[in-house]
Amino acid sequence: MNANNDRYVVGVDFGTLSGRAVVVRVSDGAEVGTAVHEYAHRVIEDRLPGTAVRLGPDWALQSPEDWREVLRQAVPKAVAAAGISPSQVIGLGTDFTACTILPATADGVPLCEVDGFAGRPHAWPKLWKHHAAQSHADRINAVAARRGESWLPRYGGKISSEWAFAKGLQVLEEDPEVYGRAERWIEAADWIVWQLTGVETRNVCTAGYKAIRQDGHYPSAEFLAELNPAFTGFTDKLGGEPSPLGGLAGRLDARAAGWTKLPEGIAISIGNVDAHVTAAAADAVRPGQMVAIMGTSTCHVMSSDALAEVPGMCGVVRDGIVPGLWGYEAGQSGVGDIFGWFVETSVPGSYEREAEERGLSVHELLTELAAGQRVGQHGLVALDWHNGNRSVLVDHNLSAVVVGQTLATRPEDTYRALIEATAFGARTIVETFEDSGVPVTEFVAAGGLIKNRFLMQVYADVLRRPISVIGSEQGCALGSAIHAAVAAGAYPDITSASAAMGRRGEAAYIPDAGRADTYDRLYAEYRRLHDHFAGGEMLHGLRALRNEAVTPAGENDKSTSTNEEDA
Amino acid sequence: MNANNDRYVVGVDFGTLSGRAVVVRVSDGAEVGTAVHEYAHRVIEDRLPGTAVRLGPDWALQSPEDWREVLRQAVPKAVAAAGISPSQVIGLGTDFTACTILPATADGVPLCEVDGFAGRPHAWPKLWKHHAAQSHADRINAVAARRGESWLPRYGGKISSEWAFAKGLQVLEEDPEVYGRAERWIEAADWIVWQLTGVETRNVCTAGYKAIRQDGHYPSAEFLAELNPAFTGFTDKLGGEPSPLGGLAGRLDARAAGWTKLPEGIAISIGNVDAHVTAAAADAVRPGQMVAIMGTSTCHVMSSDALAEVPGMCGVVRDGIVPGLWGYEAGQSGVGDIFGWFVETSVPGSYEREAEERGLSVHELLTELAAGQRVGQHGLVALDWHNGNRSVLVDHNLSAVVVGQTLATRPEDTYRALIEATAFGARTIVETFEDSGVPVTEFVAAGGLIKNRFLMQVYADVLRRPISVIGSEQGCALGSAIHAAVAAGAYPDITSASAAMGRRGEAAYIPDAGRADTYDRLYAEYRRLHDHFAGGEMLHGLRALRNEAVTPAGENDKSTSTNEEDA
Repeated sequence: MNANNDRYVVGVDFGTLSGRAVVVRVSDGAEVGTAVHEYAHRVIEDRLPGTAVRLGPDWALQSPEDWREVLRQAVPKAVAAAGISPSQVIGLGTDFTACTILPATADGVPLCEVDGFAGRPHAWPKLWKHHAAQSHADRINAVAARRGESWLPRYGGKISSEWAFAKGLQVLEEDPEVYGRAERWIEAADWIVWQLTGVETRNVCTAGYKAIRQDGHYPSAEFLAELNPAFTGFTDKLGGEPSPLGGLAGRLDARAAGWTKLPEGIAISIGNVDAHVTAAAADAVRPGQMVAIMGTSTCHVMSSDALAEVPGMCGVVRDGIVPGLWGYEAGQSGVGDIFGWFVETSVPGSYEREAEERGLSVHELLTELAAGQRVGQHGLVALDWHNGNRSVLVDHNLSAVVVGQTLATRPEDTYRALIEATAFGARTIVETFEDSGVPVTEFVAAGGLIKNRFLMQVYADVLRRPISVIGSEQGCALGSAIHAAVAAGAYPDITSASAAMGRRGEAAYIPDAGRADTYDRLYAEYRRLHDHFAGGEMLHGLRALRNEAVTPAGENDKSTSTNEEDA
Repeated sequence: MNANNDRYVVGVDFGTLSGRAVVVRVSDGAEVGTAVHEYAHRVIEDRLPGTAVRLGPDWALQSPEDWREVLRQAVPKAVAAAGISPSQVIGLGTDFTACTILPATADGVPLCEVDGFAGRPHAWPKLWKHHAAQSHADRINAVAARRGESWLPRYGGKISSEWAFAKGLQVLEEDPEVYGRAERWIEAADWIVWQLTGVETRNVCTAGYKAIRQDGHYPSAEFLAELNPAFTGFTDKLGGEPSPLGGLAGRLDARAAGWTKLPEGIAISIGNVDAHVTAAAADAVRPGQMVAIMGTSTCHVMSSDALAEVPGMCGVVRDGIVPGLWGYEAGQSGVGDIFGWFVETSVPGSYEREAEERGLSVHELLTELAAGQRVGQHGLVALDWHNGNRSVLVDHNLSAVVVGQTLATRPEDTYRALIEATAFGARTIVETFEDSGVPVTEFVAAGGLIKNRFLMQVYADVLRRPISVIGSEQGCALGSAIHAAVAAGAYPDITSASAAMGRRGEAAYIPDAGRADTYDRLYAEYRRLHDHFAGGEMLHGLRALRNEAVTPAGENDKSTSTNEEDA
């Protein structure tokens, strides 16, 4: 039972397919109620809702109304599930996927909701995984490298096509009218806070990691002019000075109070990003605590006293995770989705049937079989580049390599090798941090993959270090709730709020010395393979051939029909 | 209808799992009747028949009685199926897997049939794929290399563990009593002829390719003494001077006439090997006609006027395919078995169900899907080393590599890449021949894979040359029948008999210039990958790790059980 005088905060996590609200007790972080609302339009990839307008390849959009609906549906349901009175709620915090970004008017109306713009693809919010701005990112990187822009090394030497400037430049060049009409170019993380408070704010996290804000300013007008003279004023659309994380963005306004059924005037915290906010939920915001949010991909966030240029990082941002420290972000572009791909495409029906008979998922069956092996028994080593490599190579055109298969290789062998490959990828990142003078003192796992105990043990053995595990299954929403508690004044800062409300199991997995020794040898092979293919000569060549074949010109313009003449 | 005055020969092909008899008309090679008999014991891999004696890993034995049963069952059935009178049969020829070899007494009794030896594994015939003599082969190669034995380069620099000397040395060192009792060490190819005629003969083909007979003699006693002093007299067990192919071994004796229901006294030709005899069936025994017998593995046989040391060949033997020419043999150690492995281990149930619904095999479905692609569209390149690499690297400890998989890779993509990899392997062999001064004027395909028209077209495109296809589905048995016709005096030599009785479709598949151009680029990637991994450093390291894990010592002696302490 919840005491009537307990105070609560609500954390709302806006994911890729749904939004989740969690009601959290301020005193100890207990999660007392939760609700999920799935987006009606999920990811818009084929055509604009209610129109015949088709989208190009690699496009990914979302609908702002789907996000509002999370506030209307999930928040009241979570409060009801908690069995508390809304009057006990003192604040609400949010986190979002990023860079998910949209064009809006000066008063925050998404352009896709402005008369006459619903049929214009560029008027819609671009989801983080909209990948159609690669050519724009390429130009940004080329111009920045040529000019020697000081901010470039803080992003591992490369800006992603997913980020604010690449997506913005795409809008300018493909639909100048939308670009011109967009008085604001705003992260959904900040837009949703605007919706809640009626006040426009920007957060330092997305400003730094996604919009290239470093040392107090965005890229220069001279730089933008070199990309496109009409792009010079782009930063005017990015709003004012970004606010610190955990800060008070404003108060819940009447309209949003009506949506959420929460008291008007409660504290709304500054917007945040799903990965970064998870560090608070794991009580892992101190220097050297690396939090790995392990899901379809893995995002690594860590604060540090030191500023260093770590090769292949996604970014390093002052105050980027908690105020007063440098926040680092790194990433593995494929992890859980590699295992998912393998199960979907590479496991025979006999395994599917056995799993079904035994009431297991195919993942569980493969994990059980793989767990019965000794280290190295499969004779394999793989590169986990099925979705490219973010850290430390920053090359999305890389692809995977599997070495050592024989006629005796079984599905569980390759499955285990893929799990190990992602662990080797994580070790490569950790070692790169440490080699760059940024020590990693604790490795904290969060995200969906922590459910797989075998996988976690492999990571401990490969990393040769204990692995701590977050103590919440809804780390993002819990982290947002912690930020709300800070914004509401219940705690003086994120660190103290995290200590009270966040939680993790320390050293939940301990490395085994014998297995770790053998993994050292396998890791050495991984690094040799990594370095051999890192240049990308062969992998880029294969990709180029693939792209030519898909859009053929001339002689290759036919499939392999046999032209047998006399057999 | 068959005219009563037509003459016939019977060819008997002893395969790995069964024996096949074919009745063939002497005048034109028409195949008029066939029958197959499956070996009761198939391949003996676990324990000796009728005993509790277990075999070690990599052992593979067969039963001589299974082979006799082919003569008793398949031959009369084939003649009956042909609807001819046995009196019209003028000769019988045989071919065998090789090196399939057995210890026997001086009168030809297999040691496993001698009282007191049935429970001794080494007393049984060792099938070609008995791979437990690798350490003995390694020593043979090391000693031969150190001594600079002149014969070594004629085997691509390496003797196989499958061959006569490695298997013989294993018997000596693991069961000296069996070795001492074995007055003969004889290829099954020659032993079956002995069973038919009552006369011991040896053929130049296995003597040359499998028993290191070069320039008229076997390896020297000095060489053998260095391997093991007790091995010095080994060559005494190998019988007398080998006889030329197509020669008359003897006449069908009374006992074998009783088994086969054929007339006593008909001609029995000298023993032969399944791959080599196929050249005659394809009418492809002239210099430069390379016959590829494409099945689970691929064997390439070709005659030439020229003697050259071609890197990585299985062997070059004077008169080895037809008298008067140098016979070359090369091999790809995995082809069809790679595709079989892939279908068995790497194709999801959804494909199996679709294939079943459409009445296709999974191979057929994957082939259909792969055939719809353009060259290079899958973005992959693979090394076809799942079963090691015979030609041109002669390294059975290599393993496969697949490069370029992404989250978009489908099973048909990898399937096609594997087919292409084997075609690239074939091109590597053809180019190595030509680079060594042994021109390949025609590429002739035989074996089970010729049924796959897509695969054949890939080979034509990759090789950039027309591919001829054998005109018989039972090439080995037809080839044996052709040899029988020569032995019976119906033709003066194998070449003329092949011209009359053998057949192939010339240029059945024609390369497409556009596809071939794109394949040139993929082949260049294959060769780069090939050369990078050819040294074997990484692949041998992975195999060593695997072997250590399978037979653990100490710290690695446990599987990855989680030792979670607090999660």
